[in-house]
Amino acid sequence: MAFTFQINNDVVWDYDKNLLERAEANIPALLETEVRPIRIVERIPEDQRANDFELRESEKNILSLNDYSLGRDESLILDLGDHYVGQFSVDIASVGSPMDAPLYLRLKFAEVPSELYADSADYDGWLSRSWIQEEYVHLDVLPATLKLPRRYSCRYVELTVIDTSPKWKASFSNPLFVAKSSVSMDQLSAVTIEDEELKAIYNVSVKTLLDCMQTVFEDGPKRDRRLWLGDLRLQALANYYTFNDLFLAKRCLYLFGGMRTNDGKIPANVFTEPELTPDDTFLFDYSLFFVTSLFDYVEHTKDYDALENLYPIAKKAVDLALEQVDSQGRLVLTEDWPVFVDWSNDFEKSTAGQAIMIYTLKRFLKLAEAYNESEKAHYQQLLNQMVDFSKQALFDTEQKQFIIEGTNEVNVASQVWMVLAEVFDKRTNKRIMREMMKNHFPIKGIATPYMYHHVVEALFIADCSEEAIKLMKDYWGKMIELGADTFWEAFKPEDLEFSPYGSPILNSYCHAWSCTPAYLIGKYLLVNK
Amino acid sequence: MAFTFQINNDVVWDYDKNLLERAEANIPALLETEVRPIRIVERIPEDQRANDFELRESEKNILSLNDYSLGRDESLILDLGDHYVGQFSVDIASVGSPMDAPLYLRLKFAEVPSELYADSADYDGWLSRSWIQEEYVHLDVLPATLKLPRRYSCRYVELTVIDTSPKWKASFSNPLFVAKSSVSMDQLSAVTIEDEELKAIYNVSVKTLLDCMQTVFEDGPKRDRRLWLGDLRLQALANYYTFNDLFLAKRCLYLFGGMRTNDGKIPANVFTEPELTPDDTFLFDYSLFFVTSLFDYVEHTKDYDALENLYPIAKKAVDLALEQVDSQGRLVLTEDWPVFVDWSNDFEKSTAGQAIMIYTLKRFLKLAEAYNESEKAHYQQLLNQMVDFSKQALFDTEQKQFIIEGTNEVNVASQVWMVLAEVFDKRTNKRIMREMMKNHFPIKGIATPYMYHHVVEALFIADCSEEAIKLMKDYWGKMIELGADTFWEAFKPEDLEFSPYGSPILNSYCHAWSCTPAYLIGKYLLVNK
Repeated sequence: MAFTFQINNDVVWDYDKNLLERAEANIPALLETEVRPIRIVERIPEDQRANDFELRESEKNILSLNDYSLGRDESLILDLGDHYVGQFSVDIASVGSPMDAPLYLRLKFAEVPSELYADSADYDGWLSRSWIQEEYVHLDVLPATLKLPRRYSCRYVELTVIDTSPKWKASFSNPLFVAKSSVSMDQLSAVTIEDEELKAIYNVSVKTLLDCMQTVFEDGPKRDRRLWLGDLRLQALANYYTFNDLFLAKRCLYLFGGMRTNDGKIPANVFTEPELTPDDTFLFDYSLFFVTSLFDYVEHTKDYDALENLYPIAKKAVDLALEQVDSQGRLVLTEDWPVFVDWSNDFEKSTAGQAIMIYTLKRFLKLAEAYNESEKAHYQQLLNQMVDFSKQALFDTEQKQFIIEGTNEVNVASQVWMVLAEVFDKRTNKRIMREMMKNHFPIKGIATPYMYHHVVEALFIADCSEEAIKLMKDYWGKMIELGADTFWEAFKPEDLEFSPYGSPILNSYCHAWSCTPAYLIGKYLLVNK
Repeated sequence: MAFTFQINNDVVWDYDKNLLERAEANIPALLETEVRPIRIVERIPEDQRANDFELRESEKNILSLNDYSLGRDESLILDLGDHYVGQFSVDIASVGSPMDAPLYLRLKFAEVPSELYADSADYDGWLSRSWIQEEYVHLDVLPATLKLPRRYSCRYVELTVIDTSPKWKASFSNPLFVAKSSVSMDQLSAVTIEDEELKAIYNVSVKTLLDCMQTVFEDGPKRDRRLWLGDLRLQALANYYTFNDLFLAKRCLYLFGGMRTNDGKIPANVFTEPELTPDDTFLFDYSLFFVTSLFDYVEHTKDYDALENLYPIAKKAVDLALEQVDSQGRLVLTEDWPVFVDWSNDFEKSTAGQAIMIYTLKRFLKLAEAYNESEKAHYQQLLNQMVDFSKQALFDTEQKQFIIEGTNEVNVASQVWMVLAEVFDKRTNKRIMREMMKNHFPIKGIATPYMYHHVVEALFIADCSEEAIKLMKDYWGKMIELGADTFWEAFKPEDLEFSPYGSPILNSYCHAWSCTPAYLIGKYLLVNK
C-alpha cells in the first residue's frame, strides 16, 4: 500500500495488554531452507532484449564460481532459481599478490531482472531510497565469510567488485541463501489443477504467499515488510485455502485488536519491531476489513474464544464507520479518513466505499449473531437503509450500472464492490458485470492485483466464471509469461514499465495482495469441482 | 610508499619460525581512549574559503546534537578536535511517525577537510578506491547503536542521511570514538622547546607517530596501514627520542628478519593479517634499511640477543646488495630491484643509491664489529672502494656537487645522501650543501616529507643547523599553518592541492615518514642544548 503519506502525530493510542499478549504468544518460529545459486546470469544489451524482465545465462559456470576472480568494476549475477526471502552469505578470498588494500564490494539483491537494469543512483522518487536492496561493504582482511545481517527478498544476487588493487582480485565461493518463512510447501495439501495455465498461476500465488508469511503476514518482504489490514484480509483468505496456518492469522488479528486509538479506530497497519507500534495511517475500508477478516477467521476456524475477545473491537470499528453514514443510508467520506479501494485516484470511490460498508455490515451481522449481540436489529436496520439508498440513489436502472452520486461517473470499482456486497441478486449482478465488461474491458488504468482480485471475485459471484478465469489468465498469467516467480505489487499489462514510484527498483515483486488466485481458484474452482 | 606496483608471483618465501615467534611475542596490547566530538562543523562555500583545509563552526551545538533530526540528504559533521585512529559508534533514534522504511546512512571519515570537499564518486585514480573512508549502512530498526566494525583514521565524522521517509527523521546521540595506539602521551618525557614553531612541529610529529603505532609501526593508519621498511626506519628513530617503545621496534625487526625470499632478499613491506605475509615488492634501499634499522636499534638498546639473531639476516642483505656493485665500487642498479629514494621519478637516483649503500655499509661494519665478524676486512675494503669511486667518478670538483654518471645531472638527492653517508668530511659536506641550497632552494618538485627529512638531516650533519631549522619550519610548519593535526604523506608547499593519486581523498594525512621532526629536534637540538 502506498501513495499518500498520512502524518497524525496527535493520535493517542490504547494498547490492550491482554490482546497483545495473545498476539505475541503466536509468533511463529521461522523455517529455514538452504538455497544455492543454480547458475550465473548476465544482462542482455538493450537492443537485444524484448523487455527488462529478461536475463541470459552466462558462459560462466556456477560450479566453477571461484575460478572467476573479479577486479575493479567487475561483477557477476547469481541466480537462485526462484524467489526467496532470507539471508545471504558468501566466502571471499583474494587471488594474486598479498591483499594490499581493502576489498570494496557492492551487493545488489533483485526480485526481478528489471531491478538489475535500473541504476540506483537515478532513483529520485518520493518513496525512501532506503528500500533499494543494495549494500556497500569493505572487507579489510581476506579470506573471510561475508554474512550480511539484513534480510533480502530476491532471486538474483549481483556481486560487484568496486575495487581491489592492481595486485590482486577477489574470488567468491560457497554462496548460500538461507530462505525463511513461517510455512513450508510441505504443509500444502495436494491439489489437482488440470489447466496448465491455472496451475502455474496457483503455484506462483502459493509461493508469493509463502514468501510473505514471516512473523506476520507481510505486505511485501522487500517493501514495506509489514502488516497491513488490506493485505492481511486477502492473505488470510489465501492461507485458509492453502497452508492453513491458523496461528499466524490469529496473531495478526490480535495485533490489530490490541492497538487502536483511544476512540477505537483501527490503524491501517502496525509495526512489530523494535516493539509493537501502530502506524498513524487510517483508511476507512482497511478499518472495516478488521471486521471482515475476523468474520473470515471465525467462520473458517470456529475459534469462538477469538470471537469473544475481538468482537467488541469489531463492533466499535463498525460503530465508528457508521458515524459517517447519514440518515438516508448514505456513506459520507471525509478527507481525514479516506477510503483506499485502489491506488488509482483517477476514479471516484464513494460508491465503492458504500459497498464495502454494506459488505462489512453483512459479515458483522453474522458475527453479532454468533456473539448474541442484543442490538443486532439496530445494525440490520442500518444495513437495510444503506442497501436501499444504494439501489435507489446510486443505481442507474437504464445503464444497469452503479454511478457516483452527483457526477454520474460509472467506474469499474463501483460495480465490482456492489456485486461483492451482493446488493442485488445473482441475476442482476451478472447483468451489471456484463455491462461493465462491455464498457471497461480490457481494463485500463488499473495497476494493482488488489483491484484485479476484486474484479475477478465479483465475476465469480456474478456467475461469470469463464470471464473470471480469463481475466486471471490475462493478468496473473501475463506476469508469469514475463517470468514472475512471485506476483507483483503493481502490474499494468498495457504498460510493462509502470512503477508507482518512478523506478522498478522500488517496486515490490512479491506482494501479498497479489497472491489471491490461490484463494480464488481454491474457493471457486477446486471446491466446486 | 606508492607509485609503482610490483607483481612478483614467482617468489619463494622462507619463513623463520623462530624469528617470527619472537615477533609475535611482542604484539602490543593497544591502549584505548574514549574521545567525544567537541563541536559540529560545516563546509565553507568555495568562494568564501582560502583553501580546502578550512571548515567553519556550525551554528548547531554539539551539546544539543540529538535535537537536530536529519531527513533525506541532510548531514552534519562531527569534529573530534584532533586526529585519532580507532572505532566509531553512535546511537540513532527515529523521530516522528513510526519508522516505515529503513534508515540509509552514509558515514564519511576524514583526516582533513579537503577529503570532505572531494566527492568520492569523482575519484578515478589508480590506487584502490577501497581506501576511501566511507560507509553506507542500512538500519532496519531504530533505536539502535551503530558500532562500525572497521578502524578509521580521522578527525571529522560526517553523518549523512541518504534517506528516511517523509514520515520520520533520524536523530543522533552519544557519538563515541575509541582511539587506539600502542603508546600513550603519558609515556613521553617532558621536553622544553622554547621556539613556539618548533614546539608545535614537535608536538604534531609526536601525535603522528603515536597514531601510526599500532600492532606494528604502520606507514599510515588510513592507508596503507602496514609495515614498510622505509617508514619503520624513520619511525623507530623518532620513537627512540620520544615514546621509546622498544618492544614494537623489536617486533618489527623480527617480522622482516623472519620473512625473506629463499635467496635472502628482504621485502619492502609485510602484512600481519590474517596471517604474517611478506609483500612481493622489493626496493633496493628499503632492503638495506633493515641493516641500518638493526644498527639503530642495537645502538639504542644494546639488545645483543637481537643482534645475535638478526645479524645473519643483515649480512645476507648486504651481500645481496653487494652483488650489484662492480669491481670499481660502482653500484649498478637493475630494473627488477629499483631504488626508491623518493616518489619523484623526475631525477636520476643512481648516485643517491650509491650513497645509501655506503651509509649502510658503515653501519653494518659497526654491527660486524659487535658480532665479531671474521670477514670484517672484506666489507671494509668494499666500502672503501665505493667511497673512492664516489669521490672520483661521481663528484664534480668544480661544481662541488655530486653528479649522475653519464648525464652529469646534479640533483638534491645525490648531495643529500652523499652528505648523510659522510663520504667527505664535515667541511666539504657543508660546502656541498651550501652549493646545493644556492641552486635548488626553495625546493621544487619534491612532494614527500620523506625526502625533506633527508635534506634536513643532511643540513644538520653538514653543520647547517640554522638552514635545517628554517627548512623544518618552512615545510612542516606550513602544514601546521594549514591546520595539520598530524603530518601528511604528501605535501608540496608550492601546490596545496597536490595529490599523487589524483584526489586528496586517497592521501594519507597521518603518515609515518612525516613524523621525523620529533627525531631531528630530539637528536640535533634538544640533546645538544
